[in-house]
Amino acid sequence: MIRHDLEPPYYLVTFSSVRTEEEDGYGELNDFLFEKAKEHDGLLGVESVRNSDREGITLIFFRDLKSLERWRKDLDHSRAKALGKKQWYTEYRVRVAKVEHHYGMEPKDS
Amino acid sequence: MIRHDLEPPYYLVTFSSVRTEEEDGYGELNDFLFEKAKEHDGLLGVESVRNSDREGITLIFFRDLKSLERWRKDLDHSRAKALGKKQWYTEYRVRVAKVEHHYGMEPKDS
Repeated sequence: MIRHDLEPPYYLVTFSSVRTEEEDGYGELNDFLFEKAKEHDGLLGVESVRNSDREGITLIFFRDLKSLERWRKDLDHSRAKALGKKQWYTEYRVRVAKVEHHYGMEPKDS
Repeated sequence: MIRHDLEPPYYLVTFSSVRTEEEDGYGELNDFLFEKAKEHDGLLGVESVRNSDREGITLIFFRDLKSLERWRKDLDHSRAKALGKKQWYTEYRVRVAKVEHHYGMEPKDS
């Protein structure tokens, strides 16, 4: 799930959240966001983890601030504006940040 | 687990990883890092999630780049230099980023 192929500088949105127990509509929302992400110019990739306590952290990577802001505006104008609404999350925080450098270890079999 | 009280601009380190099944020494490493984090000037907080597939994302927040770089150097000079070594992770990526703005929803009972 880790994107080792991106080259700084790029932008990222972090989305930290705690889910409610409401499942109704949540799968559809995720499917919708996934489809939007695939077709969004400048969206480079996503890493996402949620644990059994319903706590999640998602990283969304963008080529530049322009494509990131366009992503946010697109969501505002779509039915995903419901994202973060109280039925699905008890709390969340979105952070916009510029990745300045990175390093890592790639899996052996890649 | 979400830190709603930080004020941009601040810095963050993202640590995306996939754990091996090796447990030996991993708990000690985490305890050690937690203790180091508590006493590190400029380290503002941590958010961390790992799922049952052993995939994890951790966000570590710093007041400024100086305290972030000092944190990295401290780890290099301590036994935590083993962090990221092959016994505990099959792959990982560390990203250093500057948080430019943020927004969110706080829990009702906070």
